[in-house]
Amino acid sequence: MGYVSGLKCRECGREYPVDPIYVCEFCFGPLEVVYDYKKIKKVLTKKNIEKRPKSLWRYKELLPIDGEPQVGLKSGFTPLIKADNLAKELGVKELYVKDDTVAHPTLSFKDRVVAVALTKAKEFGFDTVACASTGNLAHSVSAHGAKAGFKRFVFIPATLEPSKIVASLVYEPNLVAVDGNYDEVNRLCSEIANKYRWAFVNINIRPFYAEGSKTQGFEIIEQLGWKAPDNVVVPCASGSLLTKVWKAFKEFKEIGILKELETKVFAAQATGCSPISTAIKQGVDVIRPVKPNTIAKSLAIGNPADGFYATQVVKETGGYGEDVSDEEVVEGIKLLAKTEGIFAETAGGVTIATTKKLIEQGKINKNETTVVCITGNGLKTQEALTGRTVDVHYIKPNLAAFEEVLKKISN
Amino acid sequence: MGYVSGLKCRECGREYPVDPIYVCEFCFGPLEVVYDYKKIKKVLTKKNIEKRPKSLWRYKELLPIDGEPQVGLKSGFTPLIKADNLAKELGVKELYVKDDTVAHPTLSFKDRVVAVALTKAKEFGFDTVACASTGNLAHSVSAHGAKAGFKRFVFIPATLEPSKIVASLVYEPNLVAVDGNYDEVNRLCSEIANKYRWAFVNINIRPFYAEGSKTQGFEIIEQLGWKAPDNVVVPCASGSLLTKVWKAFKEFKEIGILKELETKVFAAQATGCSPISTAIKQGVDVIRPVKPNTIAKSLAIGNPADGFYATQVVKETGGYGEDVSDEEVVEGIKLLAKTEGIFAETAGGVTIATTKKLIEQGKINKNETTVVCITGNGLKTQEALTGRTVDVHYIKPNLAAFEEVLKKISN
Ligand SMILES: Cc1ncc(COP(=O)(O)O)c(C=O)c1O
Ligand SMILES: Cc1ncc(COP(=O)(O)O)c(C=O)c1O
Ligand SMILES: [Zn+2]
Ligand SMILES: [Zn+2]
Repeated sequence: MGYVSGLKCRECGREYPVDPIYVCEFCFGPLEVVYDYKKIKKVLTKKNIEKRPKSLWRYKELLPIDGEPQVGLKSGFTPLIKADNLAKELGVKELYVKDDTVAHPTLSFKDRVVAVALTKAKEFGFDTVACASTGNLAHSVSAHGAKAGFKRFVFIPATLEPSKIVASLVYEPNLVAVDGNYDEVNRLCSEIANKYRWAFVNINIRPFYAEGSKTQGFEIIEQLGWKAPDNVVVPCASGSLLTKVWKAFKEFKEIGILKELETKVFAAQATGCSPISTAIKQGVDVIRPVKPNTIAKSLAIGNPADGFYATQVVKETGGYGEDVSDEEVVEGIKLLAKTEGIFAETAGGVTIATTKKLIEQGKINKNETTVVCITGNGLKTQEALTGRTVDVHYIKPNLAAFEEVLKKISN
Repeated sequence: MGYVSGLKCRECGREYPVDPIYVCEFCFGPLEVVYDYKKIKKVLTKKNIEKRPKSLWRYKELLPIDGEPQVGLKSGFTPLIKADNLAKELGVKELYVKDDTVAHPTLSFKDRVVAVALTKAKEFGFDTVACASTGNLAHSVSAHGAKAGFKRFVFIPATLEPSKIVASLVYEPNLVAVDGNYDEVNRLCSEIANKYRWAFVNINIRPFYAEGSKTQGFEIIEQLGWKAPDNVVVPCASGSLLTKVWKAFKEFKEIGILKELETKVFAAQATGCSPISTAIKQGVDVIRPVKPNTIAKSLAIGNPADGFYATQVVKETGGYGEDVSDEEVVEGIKLLAKTEGIFAETAGGVTIATTKKLIEQGKINKNETTVVCITGNGLKTQEALTGRTVDVHYIKPNLAAFEEVLKKISN
């Protein structure tokens, strides 16, 4: 059996048993997984972790499963890249890219949450999994769900990028494109989740699902040599990933793996959908929902479920939040590509451009160590670059034609 | 210093020093890297390898560099997936997928060859790298070249998939699209390589570059628990990868890591460009060049430089070669996706469909262990799926509309 002692309401603290539930019956607060850290402390040591296979399951005692991992056995443990070229470009001393653009199998950090959610869905005995998605979750639930043998219902806004649609369809889920934005998709899914006994990974399985995001935080610490960075920049849609990266850091402190923890957590959004960064900048605790309008579609959640908690983490750690225009997003993608050879999706462009802004504002100290979370691959949102890259040189297949190009270039 | 004793002509055996050369001055045979295996045997043990970081550089004594790795430090060591669902579908006992769809950073096995080629280019003192590419190499040279600080000239057939073009452009190389097929691009590049002092990774650096493909073979052995599979299926363009996977297996035997080696090597091609599998099926030693016409553009080399050597490996090991139609390629992509949750590019579709055929023909024994090499990600060739996937269900955002879909599905 695992190390979970139960679920607990984040608002009123009421406790619940481990079930596919997500909301407090008394105050409607969200439920969160609670662990027995004293027990975990005895088994989960640096030494033990280092001996295990390099997947997200190497931290399994801090994940909410009872038995053995069943899904995503090769997911996680993506590279942490020392980004010296980008650091130089941005004028900072030490910068790292946590690179989930090569997450197995579907090239985004959603493979982390889905690995955990579907393992839990198996433990609960579900035969059908479902999700409401801004794109990456659709891709990941379709893939992991196929491998794990689930029936799959995947709901997306109909306006999603073609790359994300075909990347889901290839796995043959039931893909439902809803005429509305993510928040409307999500509302519909809540209704469906009430009626059908399905494992909706980000609705009734959400408390378990969301814990999967902690693995990005655990890996960052381990890959930095069991140290926490001074700053971490996290892109926000619902705000869940940000809160979980921080939870991961705190848990490593709690069980004695980290001696010190003084990380500042920064939230990155696109200006066209910036309810979280706006609240942070205005210093208010209330998230004002917005109607999203940005090319960063994977972050386009106008009414973010964990927005409030994300702002609290930022405040508690002394971080900040910023947002960037769609043009800056594209510049961010290109900057990361040409300095570090990493092609990120629009969410990655948001993170890079926001990091640049925070450094220019002095909110991120140039002499400190910063980790940026790059959460998805650029091939998924390649439309964003159409007409915005350098040009192709078209030539006939002969040397003279090529030398014309050379001349043009050197002028 | 490294463990390379020199270069050697594969045809006449003449020896050459380690230089950016690729062809024998006497017989025009291709040059190959020769190692001092006695020396390597003393340092490269299973134990030593297992202690090293999980990248392709963990086998560095068997790679043709003199100093420390300089490029692609996080490349390689992609997952080997036990493909039980696919095995069942194909009616075989044990099947593994070597999954380079998540290769860091550019999602194909070309990150292996480029990591080695560019490290060698640094050692040779080049400031400019170049390549002739069917797509994936363009992507990889553009990315690794950017991170490593090289000037980059990348040549592709103008008809390449849009995804592969934008995925290269984002890194801001000089991208030259040639009005012709790969073989014409390659001819032009040979001329350019003669005139300019650039590191053309697959021309003048080719002997070193090609060695990078061995790492796929090394990893397969290690990930199977230091055992060779009974069968390995490798997609062929120039035929280089196939010969190098086999060279890797033989080298592990040579230095004592493998006690036994009885693997049969199988070549996979698209029927629209099948000079290698055709020669194998006809039992002839001469490769007849073809004009490629297939959706598997990354494999579309009509006049394959290593085709002859690939046929020899197949013959020597008791393997076989097959090829499949474009329709079978698409079915192969979908079959892998829905059974194993892995989305491969057209080359992967070729490999899966060919494996299926070889099993049906009895060329691959159902009771043996087979590894299929999946060499690139499906997002790179997503066009191939247009109109060939299951349908999307478009609905208004309400429960009644969704229940209409449910009804349709269950009928
Ligand atoms: C690529 C990418 N990055 C970041 C996020 C943010 O996730 P969260 O909803 O946990 O804030 C998402 C959410 O879909 C995403 O797809
Ligand atoms: C995805 C993919 N697989 C396989 C190959 C075959 O490589 P080789 O030329 O070594 O036969 C290529 C070549 O470009 C490729 O792009
Ligand atoms: Zn409550
Ligand atoms: Zn010779």
